[in-house]
Amino acid sequence: MLAQCQKMRYNKDMQLDFSTRMNGLNGNATREIFKLLTRPEIVSFAGGLPSNECLPIEEIAEISNTLLKSKHATRILQYGTTEGFVDLKEALLTHVKGVGITNQTLDNCLVISGGQQGLYLALSSFIDKGDVVLVENPTYLAVLPMIQGFEGKAVGVNATENGLDLADLEEKIIKHKPKMLYVVPTFSNPTGKTYSVENRKKIAELSAKYNVIVIEDDPYSALRFEGNALVSIKSFDTIGNIIYISSFSKTLAPGLRVGVAIGDAHIIRKMVILKQSADLHTSNLSQAIVLECLKQNLIAKSVKKSMPIYLQRKNAMVAAIQAYMPKSFKFTNPEGGLFIWGEFEKGVDTVALFKEAIDKNVAYIQGQVFFAENVHKQVDALAYKNTIRLNYSTETPSSITSGIQNLSKIFS
Amino acid sequence: MLAQCQKMRYNKDMQLDFSTRMNGLNGNATREIFKLLTRPEIVSFAGGLPSNECLPIEEIAEISNTLLKSKHATRILQYGTTEGFVDLKEALLTHVKGVGITNQTLDNCLVISGGQQGLYLALSSFIDKGDVVLVENPTYLAVLPMIQGFEGKAVGVNATENGLDLADLEEKIIKHKPKMLYVVPTFSNPTGKTYSVENRKKIAELSAKYNVIVIEDDPYSALRFEGNALVSIKSFDTIGNIIYISSFSKTLAPGLRVGVAIGDAHIIRKMVILKQSADLHTSNLSQAIVLECLKQNLIAKSVKKSMPIYLQRKNAMVAAIQAYMPKSFKFTNPEGGLFIWGEFEKGVDTVALFKEAIDKNVAYIQGQVFFAENVHKQVDALAYKNTIRLNYSTETPSSITSGIQNLSKIFS
Repeated sequence: MLAQCQKMRYNKDMQLDFSTRMNGLNGNATREIFKLLTRPEIVSFAGGLPSNECLPIEEIAEISNTLLKSKHATRILQYGTTEGFVDLKEALLTHVKGVGITNQTLDNCLVISGGQQGLYLALSSFIDKGDVVLVENPTYLAVLPMIQGFEGKAVGVNATENGLDLADLEEKIIKHKPKMLYVVPTFSNPTGKTYSVENRKKIAELSAKYNVIVIEDDPYSALRFEGNALVSIKSFDTIGNIIYISSFSKTLAPGLRVGVAIGDAHIIRKMVILKQSADLHTSNLSQAIVLECLKQNLIAKSVKKSMPIYLQRKNAMVAAIQAYMPKSFKFTNPEGGLFIWGEFEKGVDTVALFKEAIDKNVAYIQGQVFFAENVHKQVDALAYKNTIRLNYSTETPSSITSGIQNLSKIFS
Repeated sequence: MLAQCQKMRYNKDMQLDFSTRMNGLNGNATREIFKLLTRPEIVSFAGGLPSNECLPIEEIAEISNTLLKSKHATRILQYGTTEGFVDLKEALLTHVKGVGITNQTLDNCLVISGGQQGLYLALSSFIDKGDVVLVENPTYLAVLPMIQGFEGKAVGVNATENGLDLADLEEKIIKHKPKMLYVVPTFSNPTGKTYSVENRKKIAELSAKYNVIVIEDDPYSALRFEGNALVSIKSFDTIGNIIYISSFSKTLAPGLRVGVAIGDAHIIRKMVILKQSADLHTSNLSQAIVLECLKQNLIAKSVKKSMPIYLQRKNAMVAAIQAYMPKSFKFTNPEGGLFIWGEFEKGVDTVALFKEAIDKNVAYIQGQVFFAENVHKQVDALAYKNTIRLNYSTETPSSITSGIQNLSKIFS
């Protein structure tokens, strides 16, 4: 037993010569903040989770039980193809018609293990060391280390209220010759903002003109509680350069890890080859559950039930901000999704004040981490430090009110 | 509508500048052969699947139903941590004691989306362009394009009946200065061969001496129908350089996509960071099912029920080979796992004869694809073309007999 213990007391001088892609990759800040969520006294505006109350637990339990007792059980538990179940792919092609994506075939469709995997496979298909990926500034936090992991370089594009700043986009395309552009055009993470139809059309045109591959990340568009639905950027694709990625993490259940990628057949083929290595295929049980939910129209029904809850929470947050936060605090008022984005006056430091907020039992995400420059450590002392992302989906209206009230004490 | 159709008729001149990692990656040959399996008249020795009869469908259905109707349902359907459920990791640490891996903590353990993902994350953590990975010749087919995808180079190590040829291993370590060594030491895919305890110990010693990271891939060791269980190479790890990877694809159900990686905490941390980008976390429903199966000892029970079936099929294949195949055909006679490996006389070309076999309704895998040199297109005209992999797990004894009989007509 002593010999056994000694054997396992590893020599700490072992040389670990990790790959260069690991340089500077230290884990995703939001994933670390998730650990704070386990403290029940914390009012968390830091997450990006759907509300527990909105998970259609009973319906999924019923569906799963029926599936595993049916003739489909064998194909669910046995190996499957990397592309995903053919009948699920057919259902997904119908599903994406809802955002104006039509005339696609099975070769344009790949079942992915959550939207995150879609971004990963799309970037992996194209990005070599030194390649530039344009992103909206600010953008989805997790895409930045992912780009870095392929030794690419994220460059931020300025944004307006209606979408990307098209002049800045064209200037940066000409200057950086990017291989890809990554955008979350509807209820963006982190801003909650939505690009106008005109802006979408222009992004499709500009990217086609300069042969830039676009990743359109769309996890949130179904979560609309106000206003009218818009078509996707992909719906304006004329040359096949746009990869549309969505998932069922916000509309059904993130724990299942199922999403969809729609793109040019040559691109999807490359993503399939990479997915063979990455995880062989997506969990068949998860695929079968999503397929059955689509067949029964359960996703639309579940979202419809959830939207009044999200609207109420968003309204509670907006009202509390108006009542308690400093008048100089500017914030977005989204028509859907999970996030409000805020900007304090220059000089306010949400990074430094985070600890004080936690002491007052409130958590948020410092806006700085969503900027492309941040991941390359090019941020000067206070740049973007006055920004903040606030999530409203997981707390009750009264918790939201008291949380914002506590937050206002720190930032006044 | 016409405008819509025209819009989607993509310009085929679009320039697709894929990443250099995609060069020469054309998909895994066995995945393509899987498509043949859908033709019911084919007797397939080409697969590597567990037998449908051995999937514990009713038990998993019962467990899944109970879980989704329990208080655990919310955590199953909500987001989870990248590392995996803590209680599953605890159960996995107990599970791997079965192959002699002791004194590990939660930081040494990562839940993965199938064994394949473990190999992918381990290689990604270490392999840069030009880095060498030593592999047994022949080795698991899918690891070769994976190494190529990281722009590394696979170099084959000779083998004996008892494991790796240790002199050749040391020579190639000195010559190529490899970062990693990849092995499947128990019931190897493709040979069905098992390394002796002495060979395992020596591999641990040599790899520690030269600071080579070892990936020990162990999907099959539980599938033992004859002989005595052996401890893992990882059980002889003195410096923390061995990453042990196993999965529940062959012992429970591949469709769930759950496996485990055990390694030095620094290495596991890098794999966690990469997994954050790759798929955020493994399906929680799959994790919860595997945890419950471990708790109820269902995996061991299910394997125990399956082994007489596998043994009967292996025996049927060995008997048919002895009865019908040419006397010059050499083949392995494994004590477990899924595969028999065969070698015809030099000059016999299993690649050229594959079409004839399909015409006689028998499928196999040409042995050539399992050799490191093959992926680099360094194989001279007939090298390894006389080898063949035969899987016996999915066909009945009578199909196996008639399949081998048909095969013998081609190769006589």
